[in-house]
Amino acid sequence: MKKYCLFIILALFSAICVSGCTGNGESLPEDTYGDAPPAVETVEAGNDVLYQVSTLDALLQSVYDGVVSFEELETHGDFGIGTFDGLEGEMLALDGDYYQIKTDGIAYPVSGEMTTPFATVTSFEADENFRLGEPVNLTEFEEYLDSNLPSENLFYAVRVDGNFSYLKARSVPRQEKPYPRLVDAVSTQAVFEFENVSGTLVGFRTPEYVKGVNVPGYHLHFITTDRGAGGHVLDFELEEGDAAVDITRAFFMELPKSGDFYEVELGQDLQAEVETVEK
Amino acid sequence: MKKYCLFIILALFSAICVSGCTGNGESLPEDTYGDAPPAVETVEAGNDVLYQVSTLDALLQSVYDGVVSFEELETHGDFGIGTFDGLEGEMLALDGDYYQIKTDGIAYPVSGEMTTPFATVTSFEADENFRLGEPVNLTEFEEYLDSNLPSENLFYAVRVDGNFSYLKARSVPRQEKPYPRLVDAVSTQAVFEFENVSGTLVGFRTPEYVKGVNVPGYHLHFITTDRGAGGHVLDFELEEGDAAVDITRAFFMELPKSGDFYEVELGQDLQAEVETVEK
Repeated sequence: MKKYCLFIILALFSAICVSGCTGNGESLPEDTYGDAPPAVETVEAGNDVLYQVSTLDALLQSVYDGVVSFEELETHGDFGIGTFDGLEGEMLALDGDYYQIKTDGIAYPVSGEMTTPFATVTSFEADENFRLGEPVNLTEFEEYLDSNLPSENLFYAVRVDGNFSYLKARSVPRQEKPYPRLVDAVSTQAVFEFENVSGTLVGFRTPEYVKGVNVPGYHLHFITTDRGAGGHVLDFELEEGDAAVDITRAFFMELPKSGDFYEVELGQDLQAEVETVEK
Repeated sequence: MKKYCLFIILALFSAICVSGCTGNGESLPEDTYGDAPPAVETVEAGNDVLYQVSTLDALLQSVYDGVVSFEELETHGDFGIGTFDGLEGEMLALDGDYYQIKTDGIAYPVSGEMTTPFATVTSFEADENFRLGEPVNLTEFEEYLDSNLPSENLFYAVRVDGNFSYLKARSVPRQEKPYPRLVDAVSTQAVFEFENVSGTLVGFRTPEYVKGVNVPGYHLHFITTDRGAGGHVLDFELEEGDAAVDITRAFFMELPKSGDFYEVELGQDLQAEVETVEK
């Protein structure tokens, strides 16, 4: 059975290679930065804006109806993460292409008339680059980046192209009304474990003071190099890769017009639920 | 292991079917995502944006250096409140004119090269109007407005033109480095009491979930009808007046480039200090 599996995998893999249609698959850049990370002294933050639909608090409290179309969302950025109407899967945008990763783990293209209840996107322009020459896990990666960022009080878009010996991701199934709370919805999540996979982490680091508005700290999604599979990142072991950070000093939040958002009791301390949902 | 195999097969298969041969495959047949986007209740919120410089948390923690010029600030709105470099007085913008109310209680014009460490402005367009025909104090006014606003979860610009039998306002003197915390700086505030004065309240109501970012609830400044005097509002008795509310669903926050902002420890619970500072 195992051999048979391997055969199908190889056959399909070679079909991709032979067809020559590897989509956006990009090879990793050369070792431009060597092993030592550059010290961050000058901050070239540019004029980047992190654009967000709705608030995390609202999502935690079941406000899942899509309120902004992807046709509109993509005018605000080519890079980002989020979810879909009815909480149907994980959203990832990279190099201007938007993907919907459903509970089968597969990354589907997103059409303009689809809508999102919660998303954060930006026009990604790297301000700082870091060569990750040594293996790091998720926690070590976050600590490394934190120690190299100019301040904990700004927003950062984070991209890592790398090879992972292990990566654990999830996706959440479409929810039906009456919507459960997010903490209950994620209990039905599908979890995917990748081994020896190459791909891209896409996400943000947001400051502690936006708690209630977004996820404080890192929030990362993943997509394979062939842009075929991925999910919301739960854990990883990175072998090596290249990280790029877009320092973002402007935050634009657009709130829903929907009745659900209007009526929910926001501003509560839901930090415990955030941790359950993100891990 | 068997599941993992199956997943890889599915992922690779989809890579061929979906991304492989259609290039970036942006649109899918309509029936693929059959569910129509949910109906969204229309609210007459306009396209207003509340533009903010820095965060309240930073101001509470002595980040008083001006970081945005008034020449730039006024491109983001004709209406708003804030403070000045070194915390020198109360800022009020009304009908496109910007004023600096110093500790003598007098409203001075603001020049473009002056700067602000914290301000919130918008282009004011009334969405709702309320006739205030009966006397109300500050608390009653807030309760009245709250009961007539569509949601506690949006931002509102609030303007009241009225006659006040009593109004208590304050202004804060310029601070010298090393800057004290805001809670200490306001202990040196100058307080003005007006009787039988006509004028305009200018300010915002922000939602509970932006605590740390702005002042949750109402934050109002005042200027007399002759635009000669005013301050940060501490209390009032309104005889009668007209309130106008600009419902604002978009929030744009621009963070400072300065070292002070970069280094301060934000994200702490400073609600007690906010209450001391505002009252």
